[in-house]
Amino acid sequence: MDQSCEPVSPYCPKFQHTVELIGRRWSGAIVRALLAGAVRFGDIIQQIPGLSDRLLSERLRELESEGIVERHVYPEVPVRIEYTLSAKGRELLQVVEAIDSWAERWAVAETGMGR
Amino acid sequence: MDQSCEPVSPYCPKFQHTVELIGRRWSGAIVRALLAGAVRFGDIIQQIPGLSDRLLSERLRELESEGIVERHVYPEVPVRIEYTLSAKGRELLQVVEAIDSWAERWAVAETGMGR
Repeated sequence: MDQSCEPVSPYCPKFQHTVELIGRRWSGAIVRALLAGAVRFGDIIQQIPGLSDRLLSERLRELESEGIVERHVYPEVPVRIEYTLSAKGRELLQVVEAIDSWAERWAVAETGMGR
Repeated sequence: MDQSCEPVSPYCPKFQHTVELIGRRWSGAIVRALLAGAVRFGDIIQQIPGLSDRLLSERLRELESEGIVERHVYPEVPVRIEYTLSAKGRELLQVVEAIDSWAERWAVAETGMGR
């Protein structure tokens, strides 16, 4: 079954899945931090104001299960764990850039938007 | 204060606001339906499987308050209400296309992803 979607078809399951995946609270920011070069859990946390350890763990697991993030465990003492983007994850750069470009032109930075 | 964000800076409030706005449950799909030409409440509902009247109303109000959707009321009998994208909303096409392109290459269509 061909599930490709005509540009721009009214409804597209792949689009729906992707937009909600990267739009989930903090997921976009985490992908962005990894694109910018963060590799350690602590680096990511430091770069994203308001993100808790618990939510970062949860989102990293989701992104890993989607094949976007890869988790590398180095058996040193103490153990070293690093997170990197897969090829699939790195190609989200084009999406991040399209959003940046739109936001630069139109968006007002978040000033306490209610959720 | 200049709030523009370097490509790709680790954290960017404008990016954060935008990605979570379009990634909120159904919002991306609603923008997509409007880009594809839907104008009536009933048209949008029909095109998005699983979307309820209540959530569509709520999301349309949010998108209106963000200046992405415009609501037009025509005082006919019965009254006619139409929803269209503003210029700001129409330019989300570039974001939708970037997501489509990534999803076409990488994403598996949603097959009951847990939320």
